[in-house]
Amino acid sequence: MAGRRYAVLGTGAIGGYYGACLQRGGAEVHFLLHSDYDHVARHGLVVESIAGDFALPQVQAHRTVATMPAVDVVIVGLKTTQNALLPDLVRPILGPETAILTLQNGFAIEHELAQWVGSRPILGGLCFICSNKIGPGTIRHLDYGSVLLGQHSLDHQPAGLSPLLKALVQDFQAAQVEVELTDDLRLARWRKLVWNIPFNGLSVVMNATTAEMMADPNICQLAEQLMGEVVAAAQADGEALSPGQGRQLSAELIGQMLTHTEQMAPYRTSMKLDFDAGRPLEVEAIFGNPLRAAQAAGMAAPRIEMLYHQLKAIDRRLSAGA
Amino acid sequence: MAGRRYAVLGTGAIGGYYGACLQRGGAEVHFLLHSDYDHVARHGLVVESIAGDFALPQVQAHRTVATMPAVDVVIVGLKTTQNALLPDLVRPILGPETAILTLQNGFAIEHELAQWVGSRPILGGLCFICSNKIGPGTIRHLDYGSVLLGQHSLDHQPAGLSPLLKALVQDFQAAQVEVELTDDLRLARWRKLVWNIPFNGLSVVMNATTAEMMADPNICQLAEQLMGEVVAAAQADGEALSPGQGRQLSAELIGQMLTHTEQMAPYRTSMKLDFDAGRPLEVEAIFGNPLRAAQAAGMAAPRIEMLYHQLKAIDRRLSAGA
Repeated sequence: MAGRRYAVLGTGAIGGYYGACLQRGGAEVHFLLHSDYDHVARHGLVVESIAGDFALPQVQAHRTVATMPAVDVVIVGLKTTQNALLPDLVRPILGPETAILTLQNGFAIEHELAQWVGSRPILGGLCFICSNKIGPGTIRHLDYGSVLLGQHSLDHQPAGLSPLLKALVQDFQAAQVEVELTDDLRLARWRKLVWNIPFNGLSVVMNATTAEMMADPNICQLAEQLMGEVVAAAQADGEALSPGQGRQLSAELIGQMLTHTEQMAPYRTSMKLDFDAGRPLEVEAIFGNPLRAAQAAGMAAPRIEMLYHQLKAIDRRLSAGA
Repeated sequence: MAGRRYAVLGTGAIGGYYGACLQRGGAEVHFLLHSDYDHVARHGLVVESIAGDFALPQVQAHRTVATMPAVDVVIVGLKTTQNALLPDLVRPILGPETAILTLQNGFAIEHELAQWVGSRPILGGLCFICSNKIGPGTIRHLDYGSVLLGQHSLDHQPAGLSPLLKALVQDFQAAQVEVELTDDLRLARWRKLVWNIPFNGLSVVMNATTAEMMADPNICQLAEQLMGEVVAAAQADGEALSPGQGRQLSAELIGQMLTHTEQMAPYRTSMKLDFDAGRPLEVEAIFGNPLRAAQAAGMAAPRIEMLYHQLKAIDRRLSAGA
């Protein structure tokens, strides 16, 4: 079987890193670039990684999807704030069996894709990685790096492990990326939100690093209460979608995550990086979508909602350039 | 009957204004001053008021309560963040029937005083006023100015209108201060919190004036939800303390206050003024005390609690000089 052909939409900290790894592992990868196009077309990509630096002097760089071939897998690495662009970016490179793999943060991202990609498989990859784009075509990989892959199911039932998923695992392993599989992508997204909702949200509202938040007893207590609301929302959502099947997160998760966060090096969350750079915040993907899912399942989630309102106001102020 | 003798502890925007009015109305007033003592001892007080400017070239200024006589009424005009000083400031000027009138913001202020003033009457005055101290001995009175007076009752029952209250009303009227009476001080404090909790709190967390908050649809919605929690907390508190007596706020209050806030000139709340000046925030009086009262009455009040945690963290950062 020939190597799979990938398109990477959004060649930044996430898409750029995993795309470069896949090419290094032997896959054919087409990169969509915007401001970095000239540099990357000429010089390729550089990855400065804790796992070992590497360079790809030649990559298939594109300024537009019009020059790309149809691909086997579209990797979505854009921020969710740009998702309105996705139909126009994805449709031209779809073959009849093309899979879409979104590496984006948040909740119900796959559900939005499913509105318009037809019967093609939709996959989600949860990236546990600290990486930044530090210059044109240059990605710095600071810590972690694994990906948790799962397949979206239309009926919200655990999707099982398809041949496609297993093939992707092979490609990621050839790319030297640690990869795990989940048969319940929705629950895996809730699990990641247990950390992302309190720490991404409060890092912006309180203008603080993880270490500054963990050093304040009131922020610690608030983070724990927010985590409790996310765990309860996940349970309400699971119960609403598949009654009696007991899809829920473990009660120990909150304590484990707090301990882990306390031990981490001081860290600016992805939303704090966006805030500091004046970029749009991923409020709808990380807060709005799970809030609406909780409310649809009959749970009020007042703290998540309050954080959502505060972040929407901050995001509005950012986009007004204040 | 001779004019009553007053002591004003804290000659700032509130104590300075009402103390000056009382002296103008004929009362004997002793003012406690700190950094402004030299200036005020020499030049007296100046009030620049929308109701007409006036000056008091001579006032009884004191650097310490040790030089004050026992008084009929102690007016507490300090910020609640200084309340740990109160026993040492008040005890030396207490006669056997001295009344204590606190003009401070927040909740359960009278309850704290009752811990140590014995059987003396404790009164609360809710000040509806925009005023600032703009220089040594100089108060600017910008808008409003009325006081709602009520008497604290140990058993949390509506206290009725005592002869003392009626006498105070005469003094305030002679001082040309609009004054109203309430027989349920606790409910009146809840009523004021319906505005103060959302707008004081969010003005600091969101770093915004009232006009900026009202212009943002998410902050408006959050303010309305916080107001709803305060109204529910007031009801739970009333029901816990006097079951079946129906002490509660009207359902129309929230809409009225929002409309009024929308029509006000852009306004920095008292907590925002403290925040901008780097002064300690009155978090415990305005947020901690009502939160604990709500929780004692069996209500979770998650949004008020979240605001409390956020403000405690901001106050901690302020006091660390960050």
